[in-house]
Amino acid sequence: MPRYRLDIEYDGRAYAGWQRQADLATVQGAVEKAILSATGETVTIRAAGRTDAGVHATGQVAHATLEREWDAFKLQGAVNAHLKLAAEAVAVLACEQVADTFDARFSATSRHYLYVILNRRAPAALMRGNVWHVPKVLNEAAMHEAAQRLLGKHDFTTFRSVQCQSDSPVKTLDRLDVTRDGDLIEVRASARSFLHNQVRSMVGSLKKVGEGAWSADDLEAALKAADRARCGQVAPPDGLYLTRVDY
Amino acid sequence: MPRYRLDIEYDGRAYAGWQRQADLATVQGAVEKAILSATGETVTIRAAGRTDAGVHATGQVAHATLEREWDAFKLQGAVNAHLKLAAEAVAVLACEQVADTFDARFSATSRHYLYVILNRRAPAALMRGNVWHVPKVLNEAAMHEAAQRLLGKHDFTTFRSVQCQSDSPVKTLDRLDVTRDGDLIEVRASARSFLHNQVRSMVGSLKKVGEGAWSADDLEAALKAADRARCGQVAPPDGLYLTRVDY
Repeated sequence: MPRYRLDIEYDGRAYAGWQRQADLATVQGAVEKAILSATGETVTIRAAGRTDAGVHATGQVAHATLEREWDAFKLQGAVNAHLKLAAEAVAVLACEQVADTFDARFSATSRHYLYVILNRRAPAALMRGNVWHVPKVLNEAAMHEAAQRLLGKHDFTTFRSVQCQSDSPVKTLDRLDVTRDGDLIEVRASARSFLHNQVRSMVGSLKKVGEGAWSADDLEAALKAADRARCGQVAPPDGLYLTRVDY
Repeated sequence: MPRYRLDIEYDGRAYAGWQRQADLATVQGAVEKAILSATGETVTIRAAGRTDAGVHATGQVAHATLEREWDAFKLQGAVNAHLKLAAEAVAVLACEQVADTFDARFSATSRHYLYVILNRRAPAALMRGNVWHVPKVLNEAAMHEAAQRLLGKHDFTTFRSVQCQSDSPVKTLDRLDVTRDGDLIEVRASARSFLHNQVRSMVGSLKKVGEGAWSADDLEAALKAADRARCGQVAPPDGLYLTRVDY
């Protein structure tokens, strides 16, 4: 049966996360409903990352297997039309037919996240729900330097949600860059896969470094302790974006 | 009596415009209410630009005259706390005490607006209500070139709302730049003052140039006709931001 890859953008503010739930607005539910409206087919789609409530995406990837073959360009247009009609904060950025061996979740070789901190005294107005507001001035250079201690293969238990269902707490972190653009501090994280809440947990701990409460050594010690209680803080979902998935 | 300048950011999606109206959520109403909660004083504030429903600001300026003298830094914090408590999409970015001759509206020497077009096939998800979605590919270079024909002192009747209350349709346009950043086309307009709907009317007409329906000569002819019926289209409020006011 024909399989389609969907590249998806969404504003997580409107949703109880990616994963379909009865009686709750979810991104998966919105896309599956739009596919049903567009094609008449009831499908279950699978995504590269099952983002939590309030988390956004500019480059989520999912796949859908349909009974009937569609022109991918027309399918994208029809699904977007139904998403818009339903006033969903979800858009399909690209759609292409793929081999039936393609699996958005299991074929992914790398996932890329962006975390945005609004670092100014005044709360967010235009970016409300799309950033983490931290009023205290953060030292982004210290955050970046400390972040490099987390790169490589480690037991990331310290930065793992107790609800995490991953078989192992050992992951390989390929990138953790911290940069500033005016009032915005941007943290970019890349890995083959992440533990549940790993990015938010690392960002919450990096904030401790940025405000001077933790040194880079403190961050490294927290990692090495492999103890959830040593995590600095879990940053809120507001600032987190799944930006790209590689295959 | 002490006078304060307030620099204000807001998301226009939540408001029926700047100007206070009975029974409608407005930015002026939200700020005046927060000032009342913070200081106990009922004030009428005046802004540099009375933006329409759905129009945003990153640099609106208003002034408020209070009975009692306040530390400006504390006043900002207190007003922001009350805006946040009321879940308003408004924030005071800066606050300073100014001379009682300062008038946010009448002392302004230049106003700067940004208009953002999302120029891609897929609708806006994350920027829904914060951009104008134009699916057809626009030629931003042609738009910029044509835009230069509007610079200088002209009768801008073509680009003026029928509800405009300005004494004269003659204005001097100092800047109208069109640039592209990926899928975003940004139009930056500067003038001492603008007619009602002038930026949105110019952007709607520039879109005609961008899609190839109008030449630069057509745009110039529309301007010279000084005829509202010759305006190409009025762009929606979604993409418009008041970004700065000079004094």
